[in-house]
Amino acid sequence: MSTPTEGTAVKVNHQRQKQNEIIQPLLTDLYQLTMAYAYWKSGKVEDTAVFDLFFRKNPFSGEFTIFAGLEECIKFLYNFRYSDSDIAYLKQILPPYIEEEFFRYLKDLTVEDVTLFAIPEGSVVFPRVPLLRVEGPLIVVQLLETTFLNLINYSSLIATNAARFRMAAGKRIKLLEFGLRRAQGPDGGLSASKYAYLGGFDGTSNVLAGKLFHIPVKGTHAHAYISSFSTLADLKTRNENGSDLIESRDFVEACTRRRDQLAALLGILLQEANDGELAAFISYAMAFPDGFTALVDTYEVLRSGLLNFCAVAVALSDFGYRPIGIRLDSGDLAYLSNRARDAFRKIAEELAIPWFSQLSIVASNDINEETILSLNDQHHQIDCFGIGTHLVTCQKQPALGCVYKLVEINKQPKIKLSEDLEKVTIPGRKDIYRLYGSDGHALIDLMQKHGEPPPLAGNRVLCRHPFLESKRAYVSPARVEPLLHIYWQNGTCSQPLPSMEQLRHRVQHQLGTIRQDHKRNLNPTPYKVSVSDSLYSYLHKLWLQNAPIGELS
Amino acid sequence: MSTPTEGTAVKVNHQRQKQNEIIQPLLTDLYQLTMAYAYWKSGKVEDTAVFDLFFRKNPFSGEFTIFAGLEECIKFLYNFRYSDSDIAYLKQILPPYIEEEFFRYLKDLTVEDVTLFAIPEGSVVFPRVPLLRVEGPLIVVQLLETTFLNLINYSSLIATNAARFRMAAGKRIKLLEFGLRRAQGPDGGLSASKYAYLGGFDGTSNVLAGKLFHIPVKGTHAHAYISSFSTLADLKTRNENGSDLIESRDFVEACTRRRDQLAALLGILLQEANDGELAAFISYAMAFPDGFTALVDTYEVLRSGLLNFCAVAVALSDFGYRPIGIRLDSGDLAYLSNRARDAFRKIAEELAIPWFSQLSIVASNDINEETILSLNDQHHQIDCFGIGTHLVTCQKQPALGCVYKLVEINKQPKIKLSEDLEKVTIPGRKDIYRLYGSDGHALIDLMQKHGEPPPLAGNRVLCRHPFLESKRAYVSPARVEPLLHIYWQNGTCSQPLPSMEQLRHRVQHQLGTIRQDHKRNLNPTPYKVSVSDSLYSYLHKLWLQNAPIGELS
Repeated sequence: MSTPTEGTAVKVNHQRQKQNEIIQPLLTDLYQLTMAYAYWKSGKVEDTAVFDLFFRKNPFSGEFTIFAGLEECIKFLYNFRYSDSDIAYLKQILPPYIEEEFFRYLKDLTVEDVTLFAIPEGSVVFPRVPLLRVEGPLIVVQLLETTFLNLINYSSLIATNAARFRMAAGKRIKLLEFGLRRAQGPDGGLSASKYAYLGGFDGTSNVLAGKLFHIPVKGTHAHAYISSFSTLADLKTRNENGSDLIESRDFVEACTRRRDQLAALLGILLQEANDGELAAFISYAMAFPDGFTALVDTYEVLRSGLLNFCAVAVALSDFGYRPIGIRLDSGDLAYLSNRARDAFRKIAEELAIPWFSQLSIVASNDINEETILSLNDQHHQIDCFGIGTHLVTCQKQPALGCVYKLVEINKQPKIKLSEDLEKVTIPGRKDIYRLYGSDGHALIDLMQKHGEPPPLAGNRVLCRHPFLESKRAYVSPARVEPLLHIYWQNGTCSQPLPSMEQLRHRVQHQLGTIRQDHKRNLNPTPYKVSVSDSLYSYLHKLWLQNAPIGELS
Repeated sequence: MSTPTEGTAVKVNHQRQKQNEIIQPLLTDLYQLTMAYAYWKSGKVEDTAVFDLFFRKNPFSGEFTIFAGLEECIKFLYNFRYSDSDIAYLKQILPPYIEEEFFRYLKDLTVEDVTLFAIPEGSVVFPRVPLLRVEGPLIVVQLLETTFLNLINYSSLIATNAARFRMAAGKRIKLLEFGLRRAQGPDGGLSASKYAYLGGFDGTSNVLAGKLFHIPVKGTHAHAYISSFSTLADLKTRNENGSDLIESRDFVEACTRRRDQLAALLGILLQEANDGELAAFISYAMAFPDGFTALVDTYEVLRSGLLNFCAVAVALSDFGYRPIGIRLDSGDLAYLSNRARDAFRKIAEELAIPWFSQLSIVASNDINEETILSLNDQHHQIDCFGIGTHLVTCQKQPALGCVYKLVEINKQPKIKLSEDLEKVTIPGRKDIYRLYGSDGHALIDLMQKHGEPPPLAGNRVLCRHPFLESKRAYVSPARVEPLLHIYWQNGTCSQPLPSMEQLRHRVQHQLGTIRQDHKRNLNPTPYKVSVSDSLYSYLHKLWLQNAPIGELS
């Protein structure tokens, strides 16, 4: 999807949203449609309902989640219309006795009467708190369930994963998403690129993601490029007699001369350095004299790749260009990065090229959050990580379990009971507030019955654990922020949607409002999510009303 | 994607392939394009190359893989053309000094000269064996890498996962894919539905997948449906005075009367059964009298759901209809299924409704391969599993690591060396054969140098381990099958592509040709992949030529 115009209510540009063409009403579970018919048949067309979309547990053994996917949900609402071919297909798969009038009802169905409240995209969010509150005709809001879950689950999961990688790596280090080849198909790859960027990555290798979402695109070359050269004799150029110095034989000679010199300086045996690799580096430098990055592990980093890179890099400097650096894709990354940095520093000093010591070192072999934390302990010299599989598949936890639960029908609250406390829903239409302390950090999230007076800054508020009677605390917030905002009403998006850059900044800003102990990798402190005293009583009264009294005999 | 016409060469129907619009040349890593420029700039436009696409390790701790995604690769070849807007975007992100002529070259680039050999989709395949052998101009075949990997990695992974679930469940049990809400975005969900079906599932809940791929679509209702009814008074019908008996008050009365009777028969306390649940079941049965399946765990299966279901099911039978069964979505599935089956049998006997004992029991709570195996040990009574998260995210191993390696350039073999034996590539253009024993089971896969005479049925063939000198065996195949076939040549698909149903059958048939010990869940025997004596010598000669001799000092 394209980045919406900043700060203005968005009309979705359908022309540019190729991959969104599949976000349509049939992208749902069949049971949503059979339920729609059963509701319709039961005379429930006029019934109204409120659903909450929330998750029960933060992913990755963490204590926070980044909420993403809201803009896609709004686009889905804009697209929500059953086409003639959809209706024809439904007639084919539903039982033959389904009344014709139901299909006419579906054909005319719109989301005009749906009202969508949501927490702003890019927010830090916590379990049980509704990310969406969806209100409107029962049949219609029920029909949105699966698609909303699909659009939010993976987006939020990947944004959270990316934010965790960002925290592990620290602010100084660049993070690039390299996951397209391992993602769940083409669109899985695009979503990964988009929400990794939103969560704090600096760019992607996925060109289409760059084009569609205006994300910076990065990349150099792969092992095949190096392997395609065997000797220096493989070096040809398109313009042997071109005016450009860099394309001349002089440059090749400078590279080999520099290699002889640097082999002695770095104590590397010249005969072990691979000539095909040197040829590949030279040709790549000729093509990208200002953007030269070399993958140095095709043969051996310390016996070949590093020397060949330094030779070409110094030669580029001789010709007035400044190379970028190297990429390591195997081996002991901390050790190799330190050895490479040592070599860069030595050359910087001996050859008086000060910037040489700051050449970039990219690492990209099967990196996960723990790898980065462990590399940090080893004092690596890596400037940038390229991350694929672990980012896009969220290997540590490949699904965020968002659910979509009925909390009110025809103004009557609904509670879902379960022997598993975690699965009990909090009934009714609720307002949500985040209470901040005087140091700017979030203290607690508070759910209230809709219509209760909002908590006020400076006033003491009783916040209760939703289930455990004795767990309660008075909180005196320095600031109170209502979390739910209205995003869809009367058939249109009622909020300006932020641009991708704004979302990206929001994520980092929001993370800054959360105490460090909630965010740390090891045994983070759970952030508290509470209910008002009034909601507590309401919830427990309904619970008792609905739970049958057993009888032992 | 639609199912291609069976048995005829396929021209892709672009109109119907909405989600394939993102399968386009920019769906790749940027380094493919920067490499393309560097190759072009180095005068390598006329160079030719051969790449192998293969994986190194079977997923899920197993010893086999199902190959899928080939048809998508062929569609990608049909779509391979840089648009004007692609070129404009590339000009924007590539350095300003890139020669204009290169962009003209890209604009005119086609896959006319690419030849694609592949193992048929739906085959059982093993590590190291090329699934694709891609030949043609170096620059063009290199540009296909990332997209091919993306299209094959997840498709094969999910097909393999589905095939494993099928083997665990056995042939009798129905398997339904319920993963849309947990998949990697909309297209991740569609791919999951499609390749789960290919791998052996019986259907999906994903309606759009059903529409696009002609897969059976299944589904009933969710907890929200049950919760939306509180008492019998909530029962309304659209046609109170309709002629249809099932919509009359008589049916509601029959249900409550039957419930009184069955409570006594089954020894369940009537007052514990939830009336809202009964109302929901009744209304659902009114809508789908011939397709009634009830989710019975909203309150309590044994104290409410089972009784309410049986009441409505028997009443349906009174009115001449035959219900389908129940769905369990929580709790001890083996125990509950046995208790439910007991109840069904008792009713079948006492009320003389023989088919009642065979009502269907669907289970759907966080099922994975191990859950099914464990349920098998507990002698469950489940007829159908609905599987979501573990299937679509392949939680046990969320990525198959296919790679795309240069094996020949300008007719010269290329070998990629590594200290990790697993990462050494097998050089050159190769032919692949599967050798079968007289019992019809596959014995071994054999890679040969292209052009070596194929092994002959009845003749002894020396098969060697690619790396370990002493590991070799004479094999006398009863049948020899060449695995690679030509799929793309002269700009068009040169093979009839099988329909989805044909692919689905192929998978099961192929699995039948693999010995059971290769397929078992626990400690399966690795299937052997070998090289001919000639390829062994060739590989090891190249290895020695390319490995530098170290020098200890």
